[in-house]
Amino acid sequence: MDIKQKIEAANQTAVKRMIDGDPVLVDIAPAIEVIPGMKDKMITHSGPPIPWNRMCGAQRGAIIGQVLYEQWAKTPEKAVAMLENGEIILEPNHHYQTVGPMAGTISANAWVYVVENKAFGNRAYCRQVEGAQQFGDYSEAALDGLRKWRDVFAPSLRAALKAEGELPLKPIIAQALQMGDELHNRHSASSALFGNAMAVGLAKADISTQDQISTLYLLKNHNLIFLGLAMAAGKAIADPARDVEYSTIVTAMCRNGTEFGIRVSGLGDSWFTTPAPSVDGLYVPGYSAQDAGLDMGDSAITETVGWGGFVLGGAPGILSLVGGTPDEALGYTREMKNITTATHPFYRMPAFSFAGAPLGIDIRKVVQTGVTPIIDTAIAHKDPGYPKIGAGLVRAPMECFVQALKAYSHKYQGV
Amino acid sequence: MDIKQKIEAANQTAVKRMIDGDPVLVDIAPAIEVIPGMKDKMITHSGPPIPWNRMCGAQRGAIIGQVLYEQWAKTPEKAVAMLENGEIILEPNHHYQTVGPMAGTISANAWVYVVENKAFGNRAYCRQVEGAQQFGDYSEAALDGLRKWRDVFAPSLRAALKAEGELPLKPIIAQALQMGDELHNRHSASSALFGNAMAVGLAKADISTQDQISTLYLLKNHNLIFLGLAMAAGKAIADPARDVEYSTIVTAMCRNGTEFGIRVSGLGDSWFTTPAPSVDGLYVPGYSAQDAGLDMGDSAITETVGWGGFVLGGAPGILSLVGGTPDEALGYTREMKNITTATHPFYRMPAFSFAGAPLGIDIRKVVQTGVTPIIDTAIAHKDPGYPKIGAGLVRAPMECFVQALKAYSHKYQGV
Repeated sequence: MDIKQKIEAANQTAVKRMIDGDPVLVDIAPAIEVIPGMKDKMITHSGPPIPWNRMCGAQRGAIIGQVLYEQWAKTPEKAVAMLENGEIILEPNHHYQTVGPMAGTISANAWVYVVENKAFGNRAYCRQVEGAQQFGDYSEAALDGLRKWRDVFAPSLRAALKAEGELPLKPIIAQALQMGDELHNRHSASSALFGNAMAVGLAKADISTQDQISTLYLLKNHNLIFLGLAMAAGKAIADPARDVEYSTIVTAMCRNGTEFGIRVSGLGDSWFTTPAPSVDGLYVPGYSAQDAGLDMGDSAITETVGWGGFVLGGAPGILSLVGGTPDEALGYTREMKNITTATHPFYRMPAFSFAGAPLGIDIRKVVQTGVTPIIDTAIAHKDPGYPKIGAGLVRAPMECFVQALKAYSHKYQGV
Repeated sequence: MDIKQKIEAANQTAVKRMIDGDPVLVDIAPAIEVIPGMKDKMITHSGPPIPWNRMCGAQRGAIIGQVLYEQWAKTPEKAVAMLENGEIILEPNHHYQTVGPMAGTISANAWVYVVENKAFGNRAYCRQVEGAQQFGDYSEAALDGLRKWRDVFAPSLRAALKAEGELPLKPIIAQALQMGDELHNRHSASSALFGNAMAVGLAKADISTQDQISTLYLLKNHNLIFLGLAMAAGKAIADPARDVEYSTIVTAMCRNGTEFGIRVSGLGDSWFTTPAPSVDGLYVPGYSAQDAGLDMGDSAITETVGWGGFVLGGAPGILSLVGGTPDEALGYTREMKNITTATHPFYRMPAFSFAGAPLGIDIRKVVQTGVTPIIDTAIAHKDPGYPKIGAGLVRAPMECFVQALKAYSHKYQGV
């Protein structure tokens, strides 16, 4: 086989592994219990590796919030002092089979979804999705949200899951894609289906009626609750496609609000990074583009496995949130077919006569076509201390793909 | 004002009443408790009035099932004898502020949804949706379904509703239209949202854990459960638009499997009927067009208020059930704008850049354009004794509209 044939074969292998992915929710648990390598005085965060002094405002705010939540410090000032002194270990989620929305912070006593890819046996983890602390808000109200998740919602959902049994996510994801979700910014359908699925377990679980009712209200009202599950599912699906020699398929895209980074299957653990782009979006009243931080979060794992911006054409309901027209949305999906390797046989879009979602970003095609992945995402403030301020669309920056392709040529062709 | 101006003003009034409709689920109760005029030894059915000897096979089967369910007879043969002897009163649902899916049969001890239009104070009723008896199947298994609804599901949902309070349907309908439902044949989103809403009440209600769990499974698995609510909501929305002098707006479309009938606002209680058309559809394996009965059910009340076939362009997910392409679906919705009077300011379709659903069928426009309402519907067998055999699309027959326009000219212009 010449190298081109080797690449094609490797890419088919990598994409086949993604297609075969079978994500199942098996637990909801404190990070320290389940994430290998998680430890005290450590916080994992979204995006490629980055030290405290280079973190953006929103991620710093979220880290401060996480330190306060863990009671490692009693005031934001003391938290900052600890961080500046290097007393808290900061690591990327992706180094721990983990992903997190926006700032993506996770620490020992943060509860996470545990998703097992039954086809390969690997596990992935993601924290819950909320609209405050993960955006950099470390107010008492924001921290109360984390505590309520820890003390009521997460343990109740864990008990429900144990009572009713593991929850296959593939059917929920497939249905949701046929109900106008794109599984990154719009989770109205998947969250409703998840709510129905968990309600039975909550009724069977040995928990108080009060906790049952509180959790049912959460499920009923939180129309982004499934994002945490979609992200863990995406990570669980993407990881088996890593480390296929010769493969040019992207296995991770993520951002820390300072840098955008990608990983490529045939290029091992290397990150290819470039400054994070700004998001073109719609803002919560009172905020504007001047307030916006740069692109942030591990949530682009959803685009990595063919959801999010890649299936935007099937999810026009999201346009009220991110802007644009139905024709533009259809156009994005068609465009993504030019930079991907396959269409998914199971995840399908009715608006395209049930064609499969475009899957398997090929760095060669990105560089050749000049088309970069489209990502739909939320917007955080540029400074610490704010909740969510908007949502919109962003393009992965070409520079990451160019860098990766250069590294690829160096590794496999000695150029 | 000349007559044309009077018609325009009347139609604006009629459509405004539909737009203002505010359907709220206020109870779930035995028909005898809540439907005015319901009595012993009476069965109401879908479509315009029709005697036993002219009923189609599926409706006869459902009527036999209803007699057995009420224990007015112990065998199908005895039920038929009673019906032939005129011992059972048969009346159209529409004469009792009521609608029913497919054969649509309702009797004293059938539990119905009670939907109140809070803007006008009127109430409407609809029975539950299932896949067997309403299609003409009167087997013990089919009747067990009715009994389970009567003994477990309906009382549990009633208790849940009482515990949590009345349930506004307008927000659920608006959301579902943005999640790929068209609210006639596809209710994946509305049913999931309804499930989430009722789960809280079920947890609060004073019912057994066993009944709670059974009902939660029903809500989780029955992805057409909301059809009964959409139909009751449609009837509650349409009724205040009745009896507007001079209005040419359609206030009911329904079919009994033998005849298709419409009512028009300015033409009082009259039915304009013509033979029911056959449905162009896809069949459950083992059945074909040769087995199909003709168009049946009160469910076209959903198209009457601007849902169903009228918003098919926003619901391409349904095409796997009824056939056709996304472009055809978009085309139907555009076509319906030519025969309607307004677009709904609240019920909107993302696929059309959030344009409103086409609302208020004008019999003049139907006759002038030659375009008849498109309805998506299920298919029953031509003979009694079968469950659902398919689903598809059907056009309302032009003849009803021509008849109505003639009656209109006679009444208002003395022609």
